Amino acid sequence: MKIQSVKGTRDFYPPVMAVRNFILDGWKSASLRNGFEEYDGPIFEYLKMYQVKSGDEIVEQLFNFTDRGGRHLAIRPEITPTLARMVNQQINSLPRPIKWFSIPRLCRAERPQKGRLREFFQWNVDIIGSESILADAEVIYCTIDYLRSLGLTSKDIKAKISSRKLLAAFLLDIGIAADSLESLYPILDKKPKLPEDAFVEMLGKAVEDDGKADTIKKFMELSDISEIAGLFNPGEEAKAALQELSDLMDILGQMSVGDYCVFDPHIVRGLAYYTGIVFEIHDAANSLRAVAGGGRYDNLLGDFGGPKVSGTGMGMGDCVLEILLSEKGLLDGQLPTKNLDYFIACLDTDLQGAALELTAALRHAGFATDFSYKATGLKKQLKQASAANSAICVIIGTEYKEKSLFLVKDMKTSGQQLMTKEQVIQAAK
Amino acid sequence: MKIQSVKGTRDFYPPVMAVRNFILDGWKSASLRNGFEEYDGPIFEYLKMYQVKSGDEIVEQLFNFTDRGGRHLAIRPEITPTLARMVNQQINSLPRPIKWFSIPRLCRAERPQKGRLREFFQWNVDIIGSESILADAEVIYCTIDYLRSLGLTSKDIKAKISSRKLLAAFLLDIGIAADSLESLYPILDKKPKLPEDAFVEMLGKAVEDDGKADTIKKFMELSDISEIAGLFNPGEEAKAALQELSDLMDILGQMSVGDYCVFDPHIVRGLAYYTGIVFEIHDAANSLRAVAGGGRYDNLLGDFGGPKVSGTGMGMGDCVLEILLSEKGLLDGQLPTKNLDYFIACLDTDLQGAALELTAALRHAGFATDFSYKATGLKKQLKQASAANSAICVIIGTEYKEKSLFLVKDMKTSGQQLMTKEQVIQAAK
Repeated sequence: MKIQSVKGTRDFYPPVMAVRNFILDGWKSASLRNGFEEYDGPIFEYLKMYQVKSGDEIVEQLFNFTDRGGRHLAIRPEITPTLARMVNQQINSLPRPIKWFSIPRLCRAERPQKGRLREFFQWNVDIIGSESILADAEVIYCTIDYLRSLGLTSKDIKAKISSRKLLAAFLLDIGIAADSLESLYPILDKKPKLPEDAFVEMLGKAVEDDGKADTIKKFMELSDISEIAGLFNPGEEAKAALQELSDLMDILGQMSVGDYCVFDPHIVRGLAYYTGIVFEIHDAANSLRAVAGGGRYDNLLGDFGGPKVSGTGMGMGDCVLEILLSEKGLLDGQLPTKNLDYFIACLDTDLQGAALELTAALRHAGFATDFSYKATGLKKQLKQASAANSAICVIIGTEYKEKSLFLVKDMKTSGQQLMTKEQVIQAAK
Repeated sequence: MKIQSVKGTRDFYPPVMAVRNFILDGWKSASLRNGFEEYDGPIFEYLKMYQVKSGDEIVEQLFNFTDRGGRHLAIRPEITPTLARMVNQQINSLPRPIKWFSIPRLCRAERPQKGRLREFFQWNVDIIGSESILADAEVIYCTIDYLRSLGLTSKDIKAKISSRKLLAAFLLDIGIAADSLESLYPILDKKPKLPEDAFVEMLGKAVEDDGKADTIKKFMELSDISEIAGLFNPGEEAKAALQELSDLMDILGQMSVGDYCVFDPHIVRGLAYYTGIVFEIHDAANSLRAVAGGGRYDNLLGDFGGPKVSGTGMGMGDCVLEILLSEKGLLDGQLPTKNLDYFIACLDTDLQGAALELTAALRHAGFATDFSYKATGLKKQLKQASAANSAICVIIGTEYKEKSLFLVKDMKTSGQQLMTKEQVIQAAK
C-alpha cells in the first residue's frame, strides 16, 4: 500500500533536516545570548482558546477535532494564546520582566503557497511585565542580532518600525472618531499590497472627508520621524508616542543595529491587539512576505483572564526565512548531514573485534564514530569515511595483525601515524 | 476568560523545559556520536497510514480529524510508518545501511496515567538495509550508551534481549502450528504482567496440549541461553537464531556494555511486525514500564508498498525515563534555566548608554549577556546576576563616570578588576 504525505507538509530527509536544524539552532542560540529562557506548551489546546484573540473566523484556519471525551480541540496555529495562559497561571510567582522564547511547531489549514505551508516552525520571543521602551528595543535587537549572525547585512534586510500609539493619536488628533479606528487599521495595513488607486478608494470610503483622507495618506508615506511635525498639531499622546519612537531609534543605534532600522508608518499589523511599537523585518527588495513581525500588546493577558500586564514580542517563521537565505546563497555548502570525528576501517573480518572495541571506546569518550559492517576494500571504506565528513580514519589491517597497531589517517592532510589503542584514545582527548 | 490546558498534556515552563532539553539534547548527541543522521516527518499524516501496521483498533487511540478538503488525517502516534513511507520513497538513492534517528513529538488519545501522557516525545533510532547482527548490536549499544551517559549503571537498568526468530523456531520445533503463532505472541508478551495462575490458564487455553504448554512456560523462564539445549531439540532455524543471539551477546561484550545485557525470553513485544532480535530496557527493580524497546523487522517497508528490506530499531519515550531519572536523583540541581556569561549592572540612568553598548558588543561576540532595565541599587542587580547564573557581573558606576572604566566582577571568586570596554571584550574572547 503506497501512501503519500499530506499536501503542505514537509518530509525532513537528513539534508532538509540539516537546514531546519541550522535555522532552529540559530534561533535558540540568539535567544540564549540575549537572555531569554525557553518555554513550550502542548501541540493542541482547547479550540475556544484561539477564538478569544482572533474570533470565530480563525476556526476555519485551524485543524480542529473532537476527542473521545467530547472536548473541542485544535492543533495550535500560534503560541501566543498558550503564552498568555501559562503566564497568567503563574503571574504572581514569575520575576519580571519575564523574558521567554519558544520555537513551536505550528499548523494552519491554509492553502499552501510560496512561503506559507500548512505546518511550519516559528520563533517567538516575548518580554512581559516591563513597559520600558528598552523591552521593545531588546525584542527588535534580538531579531536583528539573529539575522545578522547569518550574514544578512543592512543592505539585505530592514527592520521597519512604527507605533500604533502614534498612529492612534494622530488619527484622533486630525478628527477621526475613536470608534472607527479598529476598522481603519486593516485598511492601512493593506496599503503596501494595493495599487495606489485602490488604496485611495478604500480609504476614501472609510474616512469620507477628503482632506482627512489625504492627510492620512501623507502620514503613511512619511519616511522620517522628523517630517511628522509639519503634518498635524500633535497632542500629548502623540508627543509621548513620538518621544518613545525617537528613544527607541536612539537605543537601537547605541546597540549598533541602527543601520538596519527605519521608521515606516506602513507597518500597522492587522491584529487588533497591538497597542504600541510595531515592527516587521522585510527583505530590502520587498519581494517576499515579512520575515518577522511583532510589537507591544497591553491587553493580551487581560483578554485571557489575567491582570493588565503589558508585553512586547516577535514571531518569525522558518518558511520565508529559508527562501531569503537560499536566495542570498547563505545556505550553500555548509550543512553536512554527518560530521564524524572517527571512521574505523577494518580490512579483515577476523579483526572486527578490535574495530568494535575501538569504536565503543571512542563513542564512550564522546567522539562521533562509525565503522563499516563489512570488511570491504580500503578504498571503499575511505570513501565511506569521506562521505561522512570524518576528520580521521583509523585503519585496522596488516599492522594490527602483526603488531596490534592502528594506522591513524588524517583525512584532510592525508598524514598517517601508527598508534596503540591507548594512544588513539589519548590523542582523541 | 480563563482557559485550562487539556488533560494529559504538559506546560513546559522554563524549569520543566530545562528537563525536556536535558533529555532530548542527550538523545541527539548519543545519536550523532553513534553515527546516525536526523530526520523528521510531518506532525499529521493520512489516517489510513496508521491502520496499515496496527489495524483499525488504532483509530480509537488517535487524535484524528477531517480537514476542509475532506481528507481523513491523524496526529502521529508513532513515527515508524512515516519512516517506512519516507525510506520507500527514496529507497533506490539512499546509501545503505540507512542509519537514521528522530525525536518526534507524538500524541495518543489514551487515558493519562503514570509514565503515559497524551502528548510525549520519543527517541527513535533505526538501521535499515543491513541484515547483519552488527546492526542489532548498534541499536542496543546506542540505547545503553545514552542511558550510561546519564549515570545509570548496570545495577540501575538492564537490556533484556530475546529473539522472535528463536521463539518462532522453538514453538514450531515442539509442534505448535505455524498459523497459531501470531495469536500466541500477545499471550506470551503479557506473562510478566500476569499472576502465574492466570498466565498458565491463558496459555493452556491457547495451546491445549499440557506437555507443550509446560515446555513453553519453561522456555519463557530460562535465564541463560545455554539452558535452552536441555529443553528441546533445535532444528536449523532454531540453531541459527541461537547462534545469532550468542554473537549479539559477544559483540555487546566487545563494545563493553555486556554487563547491561541479559537474555530474557519474556521479551516478546506485542506487535506482529518484529521478526528477529527483540529487546527492552527495564529498571532493575522492574517497578516501571519499559524505558525503551525495539527489535528487527523484515516486513515493514514491504507493508508500506516498498521492497522487502530488513531493518532494526528502537523507541524510547521521555515520560518513563524522566520518572526513572528523578527516582535515581539524576535530575537534581543540574538544570538551570538561565546561564549567562555576563550581567551588566548599571547604577545610574545617565550611564545606560554605556550599558547598552557593552551588552550589544558582548552579545555580538557570542556571549550570553543581560542587563537590568532599571538603574536600581547594586545589591539588587548583583542578586539578578546571581539568579541568572551569570559568570561575570560588569558594574557601571562611579569608575565609569570618572574614568570610563568598567568594574568587572567574577561572581565565583568575587575578584574584581577595572577595565576599558576594549579590555572587557578582549577578556571575554
